[in-house]
Amino acid sequence: MEKLIIVKIGGQVIDDANALGQFLDDFAQISARKILVHGGGAIASRVARDLGIEPRLVDGRRITDADMLEVVVMVYGGRINRQIVAGLQSRDCNAIGLTGADGNLISAQKRRGWDIDYGFVGDITAVNRQSLAALLEHHFTPVVAPLTHDGHGQLLNTNADTMASALASALAADYATELYYCLEQPGVLLDITQPQSRIAALTESHYERLKADGVITHGMLPKLDTAFAALKSGARRVKICRAEELLAAMNGSHAVGTELMRE
Amino acid sequence: MEKLIIVKIGGQVIDDANALGQFLDDFAQISARKILVHGGGAIASRVARDLGIEPRLVDGRRITDADMLEVVVMVYGGRINRQIVAGLQSRDCNAIGLTGADGNLISAQKRRGWDIDYGFVGDITAVNRQSLAALLEHHFTPVVAPLTHDGHGQLLNTNADTMASALASALAADYATELYYCLEQPGVLLDITQPQSRIAALTESHYERLKADGVITHGMLPKLDTAFAALKSGARRVKICRAEELLAAMNGSHAVGTELMRE
Repeated sequence: MEKLIIVKIGGQVIDDANALGQFLDDFAQISARKILVHGGGAIASRVARDLGIEPRLVDGRRITDADMLEVVVMVYGGRINRQIVAGLQSRDCNAIGLTGADGNLISAQKRRGWDIDYGFVGDITAVNRQSLAALLEHHFTPVVAPLTHDGHGQLLNTNADTMASALASALAADYATELYYCLEQPGVLLDITQPQSRIAALTESHYERLKADGVITHGMLPKLDTAFAALKSGARRVKICRAEELLAAMNGSHAVGTELMRE
Repeated sequence: MEKLIIVKIGGQVIDDANALGQFLDDFAQISARKILVHGGGAIASRVARDLGIEPRLVDGRRITDADMLEVVVMVYGGRINRQIVAGLQSRDCNAIGLTGADGNLISAQKRRGWDIDYGFVGDITAVNRQSLAALLEHHFTPVVAPLTHDGHGQLLNTNADTMASALASALAADYATELYYCLEQPGVLLDITQPQSRIAALTESHYERLKADGVITHGMLPKLDTAFAALKSGARRVKICRAEELLAAMNGSHAVGTELMRE
């Protein structure tokens, strides 16, 4: 099977023009077929505030009301996505910027039945392997914004980690898929204040113990849940690393990042 | 040769949710391969003002400074483009939303050497027929925002009429290309206040006389210049009509629109 590299970058890289430029230099060098999934960053909140829309968070999760949805469609689907594409094109990478609506790539349904109404937030229901394969076969590099659609004309805000995991899982049947989550920190840490406490390899049972003991907490939990989901769905390699260390992580070095391992 | 329909819609349709919905109903029904090019509309100016950026026009032309470029990338490349795509997907049309940067579809250079500095405005230098053919062959329907790139990472604001004409011209060698400009008025009028003064068929020499006599003026002039350019580059049919009359115009009826004719 042909190799497919899926990389997810988050706000820390996106918000720092130098870091983003260096990341795009590295990403463009990957010779295998590849997909870049990007998150949002601080720009959406800044644009929302400038437009007089106060971002609403409940328990750290963004509430996407109709006004906020318009902002994230503009910022994630327009500004961030199109600028990454132009940046990759200048590096001879034939990027094409997409949301889940484009080519009907990623369908979702509006989140329901939770205690909190998150608004226009989508939970993924399907990934369109045919559309993705058609783009990859023509050597396009999809750059995917964290937006999906419900098939009835409604765009939905969707977590970028989950989108990257869903892509890796769906494409594992067609490609030898590798998934890399790029963070600011060097991987999963036993002590968040100590970069040298990085765990080089993590099995799910080990993860469950660390979670039960309160060693791994907060934002890392949903990230690791989606990461293990991709591994269990057939991704060949799932790794969490710093954006600057992506190429080293891809080379299989255990000196960087945290690799998720089967038991 | 296979038929390819290229349709351009402007701000009047985009700014009116009902008109846009009806247009998308019609457009989705076109069974031939097709491309939709959209303009901007009033939303960009409104978002700019909400962000405290005062839109600048000189002689009716928008000056795209760095702040305004960010707005048009968000609004044209994000909000308008992605919402049209989601709307077409809900109508079973496999739309994919693109700027000129995506797939390196349309390259441009920053406008230079004019009396006025228009800022980040692009004049088209190349259309990538291979990328477009790859998308069309897989039955994607490109939805193109009026943005190009310079190949060095810079996005540029570009006139949607010109982009539609450039696409029709470039693809005329590969497809039996038809180009439709959709307006609010029923075609080219001899008297702008009289809808019944529509010219059903217009040759370039007739156009030149009407221009010299001051009968055709203002915004219609650059539109007709780009429309005739597509005809001369091999487009099989070039027609200007109301958005509501697109399907009738495509059926070849002389009862609607203005068809540009070879001498």
